Amino acid sequence: MIYADYNGSAPLSQEVRDYLLKRFEKGPFANPNAIHYLGAKTLMGMENARAACAKVLGADFDQIIFNSGATEGISTVFHTILSNEIHKKIIIISGIEHSAVVNTAHYYGSRGFIVKTLPVTTEGIVDLEVFHQWLKEDANNIAMVAIMAANNETGVIQPYQKINSECIENNIPYLCDTTQYIGKTPFNFKESNIDYAVCSGHKLGAMTGTGILLAKDAEKILALIIGGGQEKGHRGGTQNYLGNETLAVALSSLEKSFTNIPALTKKRMEFEQNMKTSFPEIVIIGEHSPRLATTTYIAYPGIHGQAVQMELESLDIFVTTSSACSDNMPVTSKVLKAMGACDSVGRGVVRISLCLNSPLDYYDLLFDALTKIYTKLLKIKSY
Amino acid sequence: MIYADYNGSAPLSQEVRDYLLKRFEKGPFANPNAIHYLGAKTLMGMENARAACAKVLGADFDQIIFNSGATEGISTVFHTILSNEIHKKIIIISGIEHSAVVNTAHYYGSRGFIVKTLPVTTEGIVDLEVFHQWLKEDANNIAMVAIMAANNETGVIQPYQKINSECIENNIPYLCDTTQYIGKTPFNFKESNIDYAVCSGHKLGAMTGTGILLAKDAEKILALIIGGGQEKGHRGGTQNYLGNETLAVALSSLEKSFTNIPALTKKRMEFEQNMKTSFPEIVIIGEHSPRLATTTYIAYPGIHGQAVQMELESLDIFVTTSSACSDNMPVTSKVLKAMGACDSVGRGVVRISLCLNSPLDYYDLLFDALTKIYTKLLKIKSY
Repeated sequence: MIYADYNGSAPLSQEVRDYLLKRFEKGPFANPNAIHYLGAKTLMGMENARAACAKVLGADFDQIIFNSGATEGISTVFHTILSNEIHKKIIIISGIEHSAVVNTAHYYGSRGFIVKTLPVTTEGIVDLEVFHQWLKEDANNIAMVAIMAANNETGVIQPYQKINSECIENNIPYLCDTTQYIGKTPFNFKESNIDYAVCSGHKLGAMTGTGILLAKDAEKILALIIGGGQEKGHRGGTQNYLGNETLAVALSSLEKSFTNIPALTKKRMEFEQNMKTSFPEIVIIGEHSPRLATTTYIAYPGIHGQAVQMELESLDIFVTTSSACSDNMPVTSKVLKAMGACDSVGRGVVRISLCLNSPLDYYDLLFDALTKIYTKLLKIKSY
Repeated sequence: MIYADYNGSAPLSQEVRDYLLKRFEKGPFANPNAIHYLGAKTLMGMENARAACAKVLGADFDQIIFNSGATEGISTVFHTILSNEIHKKIIIISGIEHSAVVNTAHYYGSRGFIVKTLPVTTEGIVDLEVFHQWLKEDANNIAMVAIMAANNETGVIQPYQKINSECIENNIPYLCDTTQYIGKTPFNFKESNIDYAVCSGHKLGAMTGTGILLAKDAEKILALIIGGGQEKGHRGGTQNYLGNETLAVALSSLEKSFTNIPALTKKRMEFEQNMKTSFPEIVIIGEHSPRLATTTYIAYPGIHGQAVQMELESLDIFVTTSSACSDNMPVTSKVLKAMGACDSVGRGVVRISLCLNSPLDYYDLLFDALTKIYTKLLKIKSY
């Protein structure tokens, strides 16, 4: 089996599985806020995990807020910034944001805020000139900016540092959706100097239902889940200590894999070039943009992506057509629409997303499989 | 070891551990919203878990909303009812609610709502006469009622059915915090006819960071965590499918233990009587009220609860002094204050909370241990 849907969700990593097997056997299990030894030991394990996550992510210990995932982190940041905001009315997002950002922005849009959606280039990068223009025109009325670090469908890396610099200059809070970025490429939160970043454990090989909200100044957080003062009052509810421990295991393990990035990138680009040589009509979305090492978004215009996905599945290769949140719809995804892709491309894409530990020869197997499948489907199409 | 802090948090149950060991080995791991077979299989497993939870909880399939725990459920219900509420201004809670309810109510209190806190009797039961009076006086101005089913410290069961009837009569939304009730005593959501109930996986032996919001009419839910339309739009974020599966395993296993309730209750009452016979000064909090089978909140006035807890710990018996959220403070808990307990009782309590599968002879061991400890501490005190 080739699992090539890591941007959708990662399987529990082997390290995490091994960790949990031992963890289940030896304990402790207790409320980490309990007064007794088992509680204290549980708390200590979780706080060690926090320190390990902070180290990998280049954050201070106090900047790590454990939660249930990136979507919660995103909702928390919007809530933090906008629940008390009354003067500034504009929310800037981009046309390629994940639904978690888009839908949250529009929720506040329905409550009196104005959502402005930044256009993106045909290469899948947010348009910095327009961004600059918007800030010039109306910086004092911009409540927040939410633009991602890397796109979930295309893998295209966004100029988030430049966006952040402009936000800082104009004193605008910036939420960077780093869900697809963290764990796939080195990221240092403090060096980035971003206000808020998020990640999800299930994208990292950690336990499902876990995540981290990174906050430059955690004291500013307005808890979305209120509760009994856990996570220093920033996120209520008895802490998911087992899950949080797996975040430390997964992140520490991924950190070691960053050395694989150059070889993976080289191999992926060879794979893409070989595909294009064999089938010149093929489109690699965001081909000329900086991309995550592990993502190829590939279309043969006129051949339905879902057909390709199913053929791959019959060969025990698992990909998706777009993001998990939208791929049940046989339409061009909003990301591709924002990039100006035509429908024959939009309906033709499949997303191949590996992990940093995937064997390089997966790309050879993917090349063989896709060659066979495109050849077969072209024949059917030509009847 | 005797773990007697189940009201604080339950260890992962053996059934859940066994389940996860097999589950980790065989998979599948995928985004449950993904288009491919692994996604569909993951989704199916999770929806089977939902059906199993619905069955145990006497709810419809669509009334089960998976989330990260009771605190999230509580915040979601307040958000659902109060975010759009403008006319009705009163929130009724009680003096023995968990911080998750109290703090959430006061958050809305700081945003223009009026929080009214229902008094409780010295036996730890909310005062129904006052409740009735408040409804009579001002029913049209009550936005919601949040009163628990069973108290986390005392184990005292509240007249939630009567409260619900009055709420229904007056068309007031009712959130019943069933966190300590579910899994410790049979509960049928549809028969209860309550609008909203909540539970936490970590109280049930399921994976930490899991939970269920039960909603009579889920369509009314206003998502707190917005995201990409998961859980039918009621709770965003890629579902914690592994965690949700463990909820089904844990609840199904607990259901089988309900037959242990009569024997446990009898044994617990004998234990309490024996303690009182040996030490007539002892106070059992809520002694004459209906209580959970597994909870004894016991004080020797003048002997510090924390000393008793530490002595028990030295015998490998783990209890707390009050709830995990407040037991780091050597003061009378707000629950005991609401019950009018004096400080010598309030500072003297320890909470013994077992589970439905605890061996009955734990109470004999607890009797021996407490007898030894009280005798020892009384001697020290008398110097």
